[in-house]
Amino acid sequence: MSSKVSQNALLNPRSVAVVGASRFEGKVGYVILKNIIDGGYRGKIYPINPQADNILGLKCYPKVSAVNDEIDMAVIAVPVGKVLEVVDDCGQAGVKVLVVISAGFKEVGLEGAKREVELVSIAKRYKMRILGPNCLGYINTSIGLNASFAAIMPPKGHIAFISQSGALLTSLIDRASLEDLAFSKIVSLGNKADLNEIDYIRLLADDPETKVIALYVEGIERGDEFTKIVREVSTKKPIVALKAGVTEVGAKAASSHTGSMAGSEIAYVTAFKQFGVIKAECLSDLLDATKCFGSQPLPKHGNIIIITNAGGPGILAADACGKLGLKLAYLGADVIKELRRILPPAASTNNPIDVLGDARADRYQAVLTILSAKEELDCLVMVLSPQAMTEPDEVAKLLVDFKAKKPEKVIVASFLGGSKVTNAISILRNGGIPNYDSPERAIKALSSLINYKEICDKQQRLLNEGHLRYPIDRDRIKSTLSRAKEEGRSMLLPHEACEILNSCGIRAAPCIVARSPDEAVQAAESLGYPVVLKIVSPHIIHKSDVGGVKIDLRTSSEVKLAYYEIMANVSKFAVGATVYGVAVAPMVPQGMETIIGMRRDPQFGPLLMFGLGGIYVELLREVSFRLAPITKSEALEMIMETKAYTLLRGFRGSPPGDIDAVVDVLLKVSTLCTEFKEIQEIDINPLFVYEKFKGCIAVDAKIWC
Amino acid sequence: MSSKVSQNALLNPRSVAVVGASRFEGKVGYVILKNIIDGGYRGKIYPINPQADNILGLKCYPKVSAVNDEIDMAVIAVPVGKVLEVVDDCGQAGVKVLVVISAGFKEVGLEGAKREVELVSIAKRYKMRILGPNCLGYINTSIGLNASFAAIMPPKGHIAFISQSGALLTSLIDRASLEDLAFSKIVSLGNKADLNEIDYIRLLADDPETKVIALYVEGIERGDEFTKIVREVSTKKPIVALKAGVTEVGAKAASSHTGSMAGSEIAYVTAFKQFGVIKAECLSDLLDATKCFGSQPLPKHGNIIIITNAGGPGILAADACGKLGLKLAYLGADVIKELRRILPPAASTNNPIDVLGDARADRYQAVLTILSAKEELDCLVMVLSPQAMTEPDEVAKLLVDFKAKKPEKVIVASFLGGSKVTNAISILRNGGIPNYDSPERAIKALSSLINYKEICDKQQRLLNEGHLRYPIDRDRIKSTLSRAKEEGRSMLLPHEACEILNSCGIRAAPCIVARSPDEAVQAAESLGYPVVLKIVSPHIIHKSDVGGVKIDLRTSSEVKLAYYEIMANVSKFAVGATVYGVAVAPMVPQGMETIIGMRRDPQFGPLLMFGLGGIYVELLREVSFRLAPITKSEALEMIMETKAYTLLRGFRGSPPGDIDAVVDVLLKVSTLCTEFKEIQEIDINPLFVYEKFKGCIAVDAKIWC
Repeated sequence: MSSKVSQNALLNPRSVAVVGASRFEGKVGYVILKNIIDGGYRGKIYPINPQADNILGLKCYPKVSAVNDEIDMAVIAVPVGKVLEVVDDCGQAGVKVLVVISAGFKEVGLEGAKREVELVSIAKRYKMRILGPNCLGYINTSIGLNASFAAIMPPKGHIAFISQSGALLTSLIDRASLEDLAFSKIVSLGNKADLNEIDYIRLLADDPETKVIALYVEGIERGDEFTKIVREVSTKKPIVALKAGVTEVGAKAASSHTGSMAGSEIAYVTAFKQFGVIKAECLSDLLDATKCFGSQPLPKHGNIIIITNAGGPGILAADACGKLGLKLAYLGADVIKELRRILPPAASTNNPIDVLGDARADRYQAVLTILSAKEELDCLVMVLSPQAMTEPDEVAKLLVDFKAKKPEKVIVASFLGGSKVTNAISILRNGGIPNYDSPERAIKALSSLINYKEICDKQQRLLNEGHLRYPIDRDRIKSTLSRAKEEGRSMLLPHEACEILNSCGIRAAPCIVARSPDEAVQAAESLGYPVVLKIVSPHIIHKSDVGGVKIDLRTSSEVKLAYYEIMANVSKFAVGATVYGVAVAPMVPQGMETIIGMRRDPQFGPLLMFGLGGIYVELLREVSFRLAPITKSEALEMIMETKAYTLLRGFRGSPPGDIDAVVDVLLKVSTLCTEFKEIQEIDINPLFVYEKFKGCIAVDAKIWC
Repeated sequence: MSSKVSQNALLNPRSVAVVGASRFEGKVGYVILKNIIDGGYRGKIYPINPQADNILGLKCYPKVSAVNDEIDMAVIAVPVGKVLEVVDDCGQAGVKVLVVISAGFKEVGLEGAKREVELVSIAKRYKMRILGPNCLGYINTSIGLNASFAAIMPPKGHIAFISQSGALLTSLIDRASLEDLAFSKIVSLGNKADLNEIDYIRLLADDPETKVIALYVEGIERGDEFTKIVREVSTKKPIVALKAGVTEVGAKAASSHTGSMAGSEIAYVTAFKQFGVIKAECLSDLLDATKCFGSQPLPKHGNIIIITNAGGPGILAADACGKLGLKLAYLGADVIKELRRILPPAASTNNPIDVLGDARADRYQAVLTILSAKEELDCLVMVLSPQAMTEPDEVAKLLVDFKAKKPEKVIVASFLGGSKVTNAISILRNGGIPNYDSPERAIKALSSLINYKEICDKQQRLLNEGHLRYPIDRDRIKSTLSRAKEEGRSMLLPHEACEILNSCGIRAAPCIVARSPDEAVQAAESLGYPVVLKIVSPHIIHKSDVGGVKIDLRTSSEVKLAYYEIMANVSKFAVGATVYGVAVAPMVPQGMETIIGMRRDPQFGPLLMFGLGGIYVELLREVSFRLAPITKSEALEMIMETKAYTLLRGFRGSPPGDIDAVVDVLLKVSTLCTEFKEIQEIDINPLFVYEKFKGCIAVDAKIWC
């Protein structure tokens, strides 16, 4: 897969066999062969069909192994019952990549799923890779290869589009010429039996034709691999992704569609943000950003200048900047002075520059000339309304000329109208300038370009920073975990959880499990008064609710009494619960209550959580997430994203808290759950944080395996 | 204005004079006259031009007063220098409404502003109303009146569009035929010298041609009148509004554009939400919702059914529902059973209904037939991708037929593609079904329709509920306010603020201002120990920061000492501050800290605020707003919208707080600030709330005039 040959066979195959090529128009096998021929494919084409000698002017072979040539890619469009046989034949013929168009696999139920397993196993035997099955195909515009049953060859450009929905691709290819969508590669993933988005993102990272990778996915199966790859690739080129099935309603629709396993929304959002994927909120968002990345250079400065001949739409553009946290560039005294010289007195020479409704092309020309001299004014937004004097075509031509002379400038347009601007929009499109049907959409797309620099830098920084492997006492953790396992407990007992945290170097309130009042007193005396007693039972989660907690016990008789009371309460309010004893712990001084948690996501692995603790957790529901392992700066970010940070910095005269200590605990928990995959969930609540240099302590911890 | 005659003259004039009508193509005066003639206007048309006898086949008059007929509307398109003269002539001729197209007024600076004042004053003298100046004009499609210089007559339909931007209208009219925008009226407000959005909303409320009022505004000057009108009108028909200049960046652009005064964003958002205006977030939002309201009936049930031939886009539609809090309808066992019968086994018979990529029109027909029997399944979303077997035109025709037979059903479409769906989209449009370029946009638009019912009901309920006028001691308040005014203080002293609250029946911690240690002791003894001492100075806002507060004083000597300490601190840390004395107040028992505030917005008047108090205000920054006066249920809503409600209901075992008492204080503050317009700001912080039936108390209050 990572070998050079395979990479070429996957992206730029030199020869393609079409298995199931047909003489009959309307048949998928006909459409695919015709698409490859009409697309001007520069490699060799081998139609395969035992019933024909010649199709569309090409010699036809009865089977792939009958071709006396090296075949990089075989496109399979035969009835599902024949696929396995054909695949075996491809294997014998030394084919490298299979594009399986045929449907009738996982998506149709158990029988199909079995067939898919068989398909993969045959391919594996011959070291072949599979795209699909149940997919639209593969398109590479630079070598003219349209190995798909799409109706037309989409325009050539710099967008690589990877999609789990074939129908979506059909729509986009049909719409491409209306929108400014121009593609380098189109990959229809189908059922993802073998090759998936991760493989193609890796491949496309170094593809010189591809400036942006667009992704439509319903599910990501190998989350940890995905995050690793996208962090690397996002430093090279932008990845924009739309994840469908994010809401409960949508997820239900998604799982009934392809049987994709729906991962937790929060894990996806976290993964995208943490590892540099630009998250599209909807289909328009995905296309708008993608076409901007595909056609424009990455801006060096990101200074936005809006030029408009319509006050209202200009304000809407400015509003959109405000909402997205973008600033409009200050034009500089000399530019403003020059603009005053050439614009009518009523025009606005601030940003947005309002050239007024009666502006003809010459006025635009004058403004562009002034701006062209300023290298740092590099992101131009042209908002135009077709008013009586407006010359939309001429303005479009000026912009295209301007772009040709200043290719380093980013230009986006929002020519607002119908028939009066249709031609102008074509001129823009042909000149490599995307047009948007509202000023807000133009600005939103531009914002992705401007923000990408930051993403890129940040991911590079994180790659350089790397992960510290914290020294943890692996053997002790292992033995603690296996003891619980042997006893068939999925939830660790409090002193075990405490032991595990200690083994990671995390300070936790010590804790001894007592099985009698005397043992409790003994424990209290060894720990020192005052102490807390808490029931220990795998069946009791909310200990206080059943009277299972007694605090601030100061004498041996208080401890004994508390022991009896707890047992009485539990036998009354938690009938039938298995009881391991009572945990005795010292009272620890009150600190700022925070919470650190971890839940293992089925797709993305350990998801860390941090936030304010105590009643605030439930009241605020405002916490931050990262996927483990995290770097030190990511740990700090987790804290800074929450309101806990406001308090920890020292709020309203209270002394600052020990933020470094919290970072340390986060990194240790990250190491723990990365190394011990059997740990399913961790809940440190509360973690008391003390003043700066005074550390923090896990007051209560729960760990599930 | 409210008389029937005037209403007709404004909306449905029976005769129109075009002042400045021109023989020369390209001239505005020519375009307007031609537009009126070409539009098929059914009233009488009088071109006015002293240099011509006949223009475009119509007899021409030298001036309006030379026409021997009653003239409802005069459209004025003469050079700015002649406008006032023409207006006077119109007045003499008994014209009722002026549409002033001519520019050169407020928008060009001081000279223009003076001219505008003069314009209004002449019109007023003759009881004429003015639309504009500096506007695009007025269009009424049902009487064929295009009294504007727009290039074409927009399609006739049910959207009334009121815009403060003429250029935006130009764009929309040009785009109307591409989008599904069809208008009843188009109103270009221009400078709003006289008539504004409020007047037209009032007029359009009863216009039978108008199903939805769309509004683009940059500023609303008479906020209190606006809110009054929209609450009434929103119970009759939906009002969708886009407010431009909402961000700081945008507001700056807006004020440099028309010189509109930018109101506070929060006041606008509050006004729209509170009084039933549907707030559009961007231009697409405005148009998307508007065209849906304009073409579809209001749904009775609001049950959404998505039909798709493309899995991915179907999920996106479902996701959009999830994000907007909409549920997909449960189809019911019998519908599902019937769908199973007619759809292939791999199809999804849940909602979204996936008819599969190979569905031809007959499969759609079968699904529609099943759905047509179910009255409660009333909101249909058709998502279509043009795949190999798809018949977009036929599906569009089926939908149009379906709509003709079942006009009570709401149908929206998202046919995703380019040339393959262009014709189908035209068929949909002509059949009254709006199409959206993404499934998410279709759902978003539909959500406005579904949510409107709730808006409508709620506004009706609030109208019925009305405002209680709380008994407040007006005379006492007046005298307190005038004392402060006489002494030139804008901030009231603490005991004055306390007095005012008491005069409204709000319990406040009593407070006596002492001017010597002995007076302080006397005050403490009359109030009862323990007491608090706080410095009283108009120049010291943060009293604690300068050592101006001493709490929990239990003896006369403690009070005296505290008095001296405060004075020493203040003379040291607040040099030069005017000091009125020290306020002595009893310590009140701790309650739940909340805050109630009021700030007078320049456009919308008193804006009330409620939220958690203490350190939470700053930490959470989560408060609710309403414009006063509020009803009782609005006061309750204010509380319910914040996290304070979670606490007040009784959180984690704490007893419930006295919510009724808080409602009471909100209503009293509402009455106070509604009746006393000189009060600029009120800040009750904290308001301690006690257990249910135990009331609440204003611990500290500041009032500014």
